[in-house]
Amino acid sequence: MSGKMKLGVFPLDVGHHIAAWRHPDVPPGGATDLSYFRHLAQVAERGKLDMIFFGDQMAAQYPDDESIGRTSRVLRPEPIALLSALAAVTERIGLVATVSTSYFEPYHVARKFSTLDHFSNGRAGWNIVTSWNDKEALNFNRGELLEHGLRYRRALEFVDVTTRLWDSWEDDAFLHDKDSGRFFDPEKLHVSNFKGEYFSARGPLNLPRSPQGYPVLVQAGSSDDGRDFAAKTAEVIFTAQPDLTQAKAFYADIKAQVEAAGRSPNHVKVMPGLMPIVGRSEAEAQEKFQRLQDLIDPQIGWVVLSRHLGGVDLSAYPLDGPVPELPLTQGNQSRQRLLLDMARRDGLTLRQLYERVVGSRGHWIVAGTAEQIADQMESWLREGGADGFNLMPPWLPGNLEEFVDHVIPVLQRRGLFRTEYEGRTLRDNLGLPKPTNRFKDGRKNIWI
Amino acid sequence: MSGKMKLGVFPLDVGHHIAAWRHPDVPPGGATDLSYFRHLAQVAERGKLDMIFFGDQMAAQYPDDESIGRTSRVLRPEPIALLSALAAVTERIGLVATVSTSYFEPYHVARKFSTLDHFSNGRAGWNIVTSWNDKEALNFNRGELLEHGLRYRRALEFVDVTTRLWDSWEDDAFLHDKDSGRFFDPEKLHVSNFKGEYFSARGPLNLPRSPQGYPVLVQAGSSDDGRDFAAKTAEVIFTAQPDLTQAKAFYADIKAQVEAAGRSPNHVKVMPGLMPIVGRSEAEAQEKFQRLQDLIDPQIGWVVLSRHLGGVDLSAYPLDGPVPELPLTQGNQSRQRLLLDMARRDGLTLRQLYERVVGSRGHWIVAGTAEQIADQMESWLREGGADGFNLMPPWLPGNLEEFVDHVIPVLQRRGLFRTEYEGRTLRDNLGLPKPTNRFKDGRKNIWI
Repeated sequence: MSGKMKLGVFPLDVGHHIAAWRHPDVPPGGATDLSYFRHLAQVAERGKLDMIFFGDQMAAQYPDDESIGRTSRVLRPEPIALLSALAAVTERIGLVATVSTSYFEPYHVARKFSTLDHFSNGRAGWNIVTSWNDKEALNFNRGELLEHGLRYRRALEFVDVTTRLWDSWEDDAFLHDKDSGRFFDPEKLHVSNFKGEYFSARGPLNLPRSPQGYPVLVQAGSSDDGRDFAAKTAEVIFTAQPDLTQAKAFYADIKAQVEAAGRSPNHVKVMPGLMPIVGRSEAEAQEKFQRLQDLIDPQIGWVVLSRHLGGVDLSAYPLDGPVPELPLTQGNQSRQRLLLDMARRDGLTLRQLYERVVGSRGHWIVAGTAEQIADQMESWLREGGADGFNLMPPWLPGNLEEFVDHVIPVLQRRGLFRTEYEGRTLRDNLGLPKPTNRFKDGRKNIWI
Repeated sequence: MSGKMKLGVFPLDVGHHIAAWRHPDVPPGGATDLSYFRHLAQVAERGKLDMIFFGDQMAAQYPDDESIGRTSRVLRPEPIALLSALAAVTERIGLVATVSTSYFEPYHVARKFSTLDHFSNGRAGWNIVTSWNDKEALNFNRGELLEHGLRYRRALEFVDVTTRLWDSWEDDAFLHDKDSGRFFDPEKLHVSNFKGEYFSARGPLNLPRSPQGYPVLVQAGSSDDGRDFAAKTAEVIFTAQPDLTQAKAFYADIKAQVEAAGRSPNHVKVMPGLMPIVGRSEAEAQEKFQRLQDLIDPQIGWVVLSRHLGGVDLSAYPLDGPVPELPLTQGNQSRQRLLLDMARRDGLTLRQLYERVVGSRGHWIVAGTAEQIADQMESWLREGGADGFNLMPPWLPGNLEEFVDHVIPVLQRRGLFRTEYEGRTLRDNLGLPKPTNRFKDGRKNIWI
């Protein structure tokens, strides 16, 4: 890492833990209530966090069996509308939305993020995903999956068209000269007239170049194609890393790929997910986590575990009995073997096994005092595992409030985190350069 | 009409007059500055207006000749992002966005408006357009125009899919029952699995049914196909009517068509556009308008007039000389003849003719004192020309402030306009019923 750490918060629904909605302090109806999101953004801004980040899913997904109705993971407001509303009630925090390159047109995407960047005075970020999931496809008149590599080639072209649209106007193209009647300088207007393999968009965009030039480009893919795409385009990389050893390997690999792509590793911030649980003592933190674990609906735990074990039928086995010997199925066998080995090694019951699986979602959980959490974050930062972290609160808003009130001051006291925002834009705060307009002075694109 | 009048405001750029951006009181950079729009919405809300309405255009259009750069009509923020930001800083005013059925997928549109309706606690409206213009098509990988009738058939199916998605969940489908672990009632979930001629969308939508059920549906087409579509679907109809005679004919025709479609005429509000110019005297109002007319760039006036005269070359004629005898071209000949007849009848110069054309855009202009403007509005209302009006301020924000400060109190004093919002949702204020979920109790859709 270089300098202080970067921090984002990723509020999913009313918390990342699958049972969050049953937590006594969690507001009902959170996911569709603007005042809930406003509160989250304002707490995060009080903590001087770099950004608030929203994932996306363009389908309501739920188990279609006897556990139907027992999950809150079916609701998702549209993320640009959400962040635009938050732009109006915050001043400094970055606003990052996930938008897929599979279900949108580049002109719409360019325009939405430009609007958000203008309205927020330079605080927009775009988490680029290529997601193509069956349930989503069915909502968009499509049936079949695109092949993985093709999705990324399409995504690269999508980003190319979109950045060209953002470069339609040079930064000083608009003159607003009332006396002479000249509103814009036509020499500073560039019509890209793009015709590619997958997309065409003539341009120009009907908005001036936005304060940041482009929103901050974020990526979270960890496959080979995903890393290649991130190395070429991303400025922030979100990643799931369960421990420091794996985090260091990922960090070293991605920074090397960024350098190999001809970009500065300093201009790409690697931010693993972190699920913090703050207590006055370690025991209290553990207790808080266990209270949440106890709220997992057995039917939902069962469904999730059965899915992770390759769709095997568990109905013959008792919930609090030992994990039985099970045959491997055609699904992800390495994950099946990993879970079964873990269960045997630690002598787990079926309930204990699903608690491990549905609790963490593969991310790094740290339960402890504020000092203990800060220690862990510091060591990841100093040992080359991270440039910062994306907080994934297990329940909301309480867990975020505790982090901001107790952990942030410790990080600040140690000089690991800002006490005031460095600048006005998300790029300023992340220490990322503003991309130069590729058309200015006849230049080629030099934003990377 | 029945009851009091309804009032909307339609801010286009920094005003509907083509020279608005050159007005001394108009802020530069208005069209991309959230604080400008926030001010407009808050002024409109202070005036108890029913709604603020935004048009849309998904292309930057400008004359591509020597007058390039001399128009401000190239900038348009994305309307849902704009209205969502305004939802966060207003309480009661309706928020209506234009979204085309030609360049979007129904699932996206259903989701955006549902989000806006949730975040605004029931203040969303959708102005449905089928627009298909050359410049837009080129930004979306399309070249040719869809035939007019086909566009409307496609739009009807689009509205059908979208309303089905809004009915995915019954109003009381979400239980939030922390104790029992039941988040929603699967009996109240309806997967429409729609496969139509133009669109497919399986559903369900990933948002609860919104406070208004559906956003208020608005339409502005005036062609035969447009009126037919409006009669079947629209709850608010915006229209351009230059005088009371034409307004009455339109009003009577559309209400009859609504009734013929089996709907209540009271549940469709007809709102012609109105460009008001308020002065302490009639002369002062006329002067204000003339000051704006004097700011029209002759090059732009020339371009617009030449377009209205069918693309004829005017370069040989002096600006302040009489309108010459001109041949009719292949364009809209009835409009060409209308303008030439008007010029001959009133002895107009070319400059005077373009001033008439670019000043009003075919809408009803009323310049006078607050009492005089109120008189005119009252007579349209009483004589069956309108249920209300959509204000089209020639420049902003000054013209809207003057209307709210001077005309609204006169209308209120006469009992023609509300002194306080009647309800919390846009439907409440407009007196429109909330559509019943078509799937509830096995019913057919009965929202119209």
